[in-house]
Amino acid sequence: MINEERLWKRLQLLSEIGRTESGGVTRLSFTKEERAAKDLVASYMKEAGLEVREDEVGNLIGRKEGLNPEAAVVLTGSHVDSVFNGGNFDGPLGVLAAIEALQVMNEQGIETEHPIEAIAFTDEEGARFSFGMIGSRGIAGTLTREELLNKDKQGISIEEAFLLSGLNPDEIGKAALKPEEVKAYVELHIEQGKVLEGLNLSTGIVSGLAGPLWLKFIFEGEVGHAGATPMPIRHDALTAAARVMLVIEEEASKTGTTVGTVGQVLVLPGGINIIPGRVEFSLDLRDISETVRDEVENQIRKIAGQICEKQGVELTIEELQRVAPAPCSDIIKKAASEAFEKLGLEAHYLPSGAGHDGMQLMDLCPMGMLFIRSKNGISHDPAEWSSKEDCADGANVLYQTVLNLAVQKVNLTMK
Amino acid sequence: MINEERLWKRLQLLSEIGRTESGGVTRLSFTKEERAAKDLVASYMKEAGLEVREDEVGNLIGRKEGLNPEAAVVLTGSHVDSVFNGGNFDGPLGVLAAIEALQVMNEQGIETEHPIEAIAFTDEEGARFSFGMIGSRGIAGTLTREELLNKDKQGISIEEAFLLSGLNPDEIGKAALKPEEVKAYVELHIEQGKVLEGLNLSTGIVSGLAGPLWLKFIFEGEVGHAGATPMPIRHDALTAAARVMLVIEEEASKTGTTVGTVGQVLVLPGGINIIPGRVEFSLDLRDISETVRDEVENQIRKIAGQICEKQGVELTIEELQRVAPAPCSDIIKKAASEAFEKLGLEAHYLPSGAGHDGMQLMDLCPMGMLFIRSKNGISHDPAEWSSKEDCADGANVLYQTVLNLAVQKVNLTMK
Repeated sequence: MINEERLWKRLQLLSEIGRTESGGVTRLSFTKEERAAKDLVASYMKEAGLEVREDEVGNLIGRKEGLNPEAAVVLTGSHVDSVFNGGNFDGPLGVLAAIEALQVMNEQGIETEHPIEAIAFTDEEGARFSFGMIGSRGIAGTLTREELLNKDKQGISIEEAFLLSGLNPDEIGKAALKPEEVKAYVELHIEQGKVLEGLNLSTGIVSGLAGPLWLKFIFEGEVGHAGATPMPIRHDALTAAARVMLVIEEEASKTGTTVGTVGQVLVLPGGINIIPGRVEFSLDLRDISETVRDEVENQIRKIAGQICEKQGVELTIEELQRVAPAPCSDIIKKAASEAFEKLGLEAHYLPSGAGHDGMQLMDLCPMGMLFIRSKNGISHDPAEWSSKEDCADGANVLYQTVLNLAVQKVNLTMK
Repeated sequence: MINEERLWKRLQLLSEIGRTESGGVTRLSFTKEERAAKDLVASYMKEAGLEVREDEVGNLIGRKEGLNPEAAVVLTGSHVDSVFNGGNFDGPLGVLAAIEALQVMNEQGIETEHPIEAIAFTDEEGARFSFGMIGSRGIAGTLTREELLNKDKQGISIEEAFLLSGLNPDEIGKAALKPEEVKAYVELHIEQGKVLEGLNLSTGIVSGLAGPLWLKFIFEGEVGHAGATPMPIRHDALTAAARVMLVIEEEASKTGTTVGTVGQVLVLPGGINIIPGRVEFSLDLRDISETVRDEVENQIRKIAGQICEKQGVELTIEELQRVAPAPCSDIIKKAASEAFEKLGLEAHYLPSGAGHDGMQLMDLCPMGMLFIRSKNGISHDPAEWSSKEDCADGANVLYQTVLNLAVQKVNLTMK
């Protein structure tokens, strides 16, 4: 079993780096805060007896050698960068739990057939450059030079940030791993939702990562005087938009797995006594099945078109991004469910609505995730919280899952 | 009959004062543009043979004496101030048509029992000080010293503007008329809506002025991650708000006379991937019957409460302003309908959704209005337009209505 107190203490110490007034953290990538966080994590990797290195895209990696050093590596980790004024668990938990698992193995003399690497990926959140999962894209070999041209608010590009950090943007290809070099990737993370809390479970197995489809709906009706335009002759862009919002809710709810959210709304011209002539809103639509998501999208588009035609409102739908969902690998789910069984925990499967580094790795290797309960489902906020006990449960499940994937060998000498 | 060409030419000349690049006008109150407009209008009053004066609140008045100079006066007019980059008809039409009617009477030697005054009210729009109908409030005797403390964007108060224009703020009470001094008020105005256009009518009789009730709805739900929060456990402030928007539309439509408009919407926190935790929107609810408006308001409040309770969303409703509707007087409607009959025009009754100076005078004297067709219902915009023929129709109806109210006397000498 993992050392609950050590894991918790490291979580506390790491969350002091980049600490904000409201008790959260701001650790944007390639800042001195992120560097300090990596240095602290590197020191924990050394304490754990791991061989520490950083790769060509800045990923921090601690390796526990396998009995067969040539065997494909089992990767496990997360990230230490955060959003602006984010929480203390999103990322650090997965990195520190991976180190904890490997430290316990080393302390107990446990050997595995496959090498295991604990990894802190570079910039998962994308908070600085509006472009994230840089480290995992690097490992997957999909990161391009063009993507390094994304800039932060000060106009500094990822490429410049690389150079300032001593990384060579021409060498990003060297960070890429080949499929035959990686046995599996598994990550422990906070749920960032309320499913486990509602079920009163500390931990769960992720069934898949729901890829977000982002659409922008633009409704063009007719501006009119709020007092002088009788109801029957209006072409109100907002009532058309309101109808479509409810269609989104209804169609997403029908499937039982899809989630649809309208989060940004702009109503123009925005006068109290003016009938809105233009409304724009965003739709975030997710499912772990692309087929189901496509069906819901098509239903929404169809009904929205009918509503707008009926109201004499013109509808345009722009696609902002379409990320394919990433189902978790059966290999990881099986290894995890055996870990739950061994620990006497109930193995509940739930989707991840949020994106994670594993999505980038799905074509490289079998990929999967474990979740622990988030208090009130709050994340990306200083109020983000998971209990010490739940962190320990999650780390124990990760420990057993990694052992299953890396193939534990009984130490005959000790026996 | 009125002189169509003269009226049209004066409308064109007046609209050159304060002309904007886009072909509209900006004539805020107590500016040099408004002063120039008043001076031009005063010159027309003199051409019409009227006795011109300005009262203690800046109203410009041209009087045609009655056979009985002691008889109560018939007032008719409108305003020459405009909103920022407004149209060329809103206000000027009513002032110039009043002058035109009196000029024709004088040219034709037509005498009335009652004196008639053409009036250009001070600051109807309220565009400069966010406080309007200053001149009509002055006539009604309801304008207060406190209200003169309203300031424009440069920090200049109405009081200071009065002083700079040679008006004494201590004497505003002297502008007030007594009920026994005023027989009636009737105003010709553009519809600012599309009812007459839809009916293919040039002119109509206003049944009443719908007083606006302005409410602010605040929905407080629960922020959540768009991907990580299943539909059934959401407390989405926006879907609750969307339902209430549609209830407003439905309940207002039911009555056939009420109009309900949501014009301003704020959705927080406003992230594409965040379930809205707070939504605020404005409601502008109008009817010419206060009873009907109250009933619709109560229905909306009741159903909105039920919706929010069901969705676990907290609802607060704040009252921003509650203006009583002003039904037009039967005396004016009768005089106007006789005028329509005489001119062989169809007398269609329609409500005014917008507010006008007449609302301030409703406790002073019988009050009523006439509308002419607005192209596409557009107003407060350079595209505001009414045809020459419609302006003439409106002025002719106004002319006959005023004659009916002021009691035309057959000139025995001429007979």
